[in-house]
Amino acid sequence: MAWNPAARNLDDDCAVLEIGDTALVITHDAMAEGLHFLPDQDPADVAWKLVASNVSDLAAKGADPLGVMLGYQFGHDDLRFLDGFKEALGAFELILLGGDSISSTGAQVLGLTAIGLATHRPVPSRAGAKPGDTLWITGPVGAAMMGLEALQTGKGDSTAYRRPGALVGEGMVLAPHVSAIMDVSDGLLLDAARMARASGVTLAIDSEAVPLAAPEERRDEALRWGEDYQLLFTLPPGATPPIEASRIGQARKASTAPILLDGALLSEADGLGYRHS
Amino acid sequence: MAWNPAARNLDDDCAVLEIGDTALVITHDAMAEGLHFLPDQDPADVAWKLVASNVSDLAAKGADPLGVMLGYQFGHDDLRFLDGFKEALGAFELILLGGDSISSTGAQVLGLTAIGLATHRPVPSRAGAKPGDTLWITGPVGAAMMGLEALQTGKGDSTAYRRPGALVGEGMVLAPHVSAIMDVSDGLLLDAARMARASGVTLAIDSEAVPLAAPEERRDEALRWGEDYQLLFTLPPGATPPIEASRIGQARKASTAPILLDGALLSEADGLGYRHS
Repeated sequence: MAWNPAARNLDDDCAVLEIGDTALVITHDAMAEGLHFLPDQDPADVAWKLVASNVSDLAAKGADPLGVMLGYQFGHDDLRFLDGFKEALGAFELILLGGDSISSTGAQVLGLTAIGLATHRPVPSRAGAKPGDTLWITGPVGAAMMGLEALQTGKGDSTAYRRPGALVGEGMVLAPHVSAIMDVSDGLLLDAARMARASGVTLAIDSEAVPLAAPEERRDEALRWGEDYQLLFTLPPGATPPIEASRIGQARKASTAPILLDGALLSEADGLGYRHS
Repeated sequence: MAWNPAARNLDDDCAVLEIGDTALVITHDAMAEGLHFLPDQDPADVAWKLVASNVSDLAAKGADPLGVMLGYQFGHDDLRFLDGFKEALGAFELILLGGDSISSTGAQVLGLTAIGLATHRPVPSRAGAKPGDTLWITGPVGAAMMGLEALQTGKGDSTAYRRPGALVGEGMVLAPHVSAIMDVSDGLLLDAARMARASGVTLAIDSEAVPLAAPEERRDEALRWGEDYQLLFTLPPGATPPIEASRIGQARKASTAPILLDGALLSEADGLGYRHS
């Protein structure tokens, strides 16, 4: 897999390792204090999100999660981290395979490698959308955005930000049907742009069709906010999804920009979402 | 796998994942600037050691290395890191499966997950030594210690510290024969103590029998210094190793301490080596 350090981004898609009749799906996510989580955030919630974000990557491959390896830098409350970590392992039915723990200075950095078993071959990817395919999302965006504000203000429910889910069952059901699929972790528009570029298409999106877990006046923001971990996928023309989902657009022949939002061409330079690095 | 956070140490042994007729061996090592590498060290050498230390863990399982996932925190010279990383992947015949890259403040923290294919079943572990077994090491200790001094003083050859090897071929040849095996990364005496505790034996070591890559007067230090990545293993009584190795002691019934060095019982509290966390 090519890594272009100038782009400052390793491909965050999963790797697929074929072994005999089996395909393993492997992903690695790193999180840093101050960037991916707040310095004063409950370490149990940090642990949960570290696990959920990796499991969501597996879900987008239709993989059944098996286990994780943890790279842990000691922080201000390791026992509390462990509480949330154990809770997440239980909730997502994962085992801790092993890992490494270190002391260091500065912002806490955490890494998790998650391994799952592919349930459908070929393993679906973000690169398979074709012109004419329809574009779908499994649920609303904006929930994590509202959850963070609830956490910061102490008003409202912060669960969606603190304890996101991962759509493992949905991913397994979708895998045999989709032409392309990925999870929405960095914002719908930005992740859709990645799918568009990987597939060599332009994705036309009807912003009004995107289900929202935020007030209507914040629709633009919610389309650019991440961490909701919904699944974004395309289906061949005429196909309907095997689970509840919202149709939000269509793949077209590649144009000069990856996204066509309500008729306007948009690129990453137009601020499609937020990037962690 | 149990993780006792009070011990501040995840088991750094590999995990073995059985899939049908295949066993995958998986390991994860984290390294921090200032702790595992010097802030002014050549990032290419840092990359090499990150790869080599993980591959050495696979070697100690008799595993054939397949690929790695990199958790990369941007540092002061990412292109130079990439040079060394590519070089190491080539040397150890690994592919980059994927990973994640982040920006953060403070000391640079790096993580690597390495995956290999077991070549012998059952996969050997550090826990199988029995009283009466003989204790062996594949080569000298102290080379990395001397290499670091060469690097710091600018006199002599620093290769052993900067570019350690990993005994992949030796591990595969040894795997069917050993009762216990591990790599020596944190110091011979400390790692031997870990093998002794995991196996429930005391390891008697004849310090004069340990091959040295340092001046004789620094033997005590060399027994406690790490990063040489030799393989330490036990064989059933009467067996001889299939590769060149030095016999340095014997396993005995568990005593009050894990190590019996030249007749003196020693525990971790006696300063057997250095620990990274």
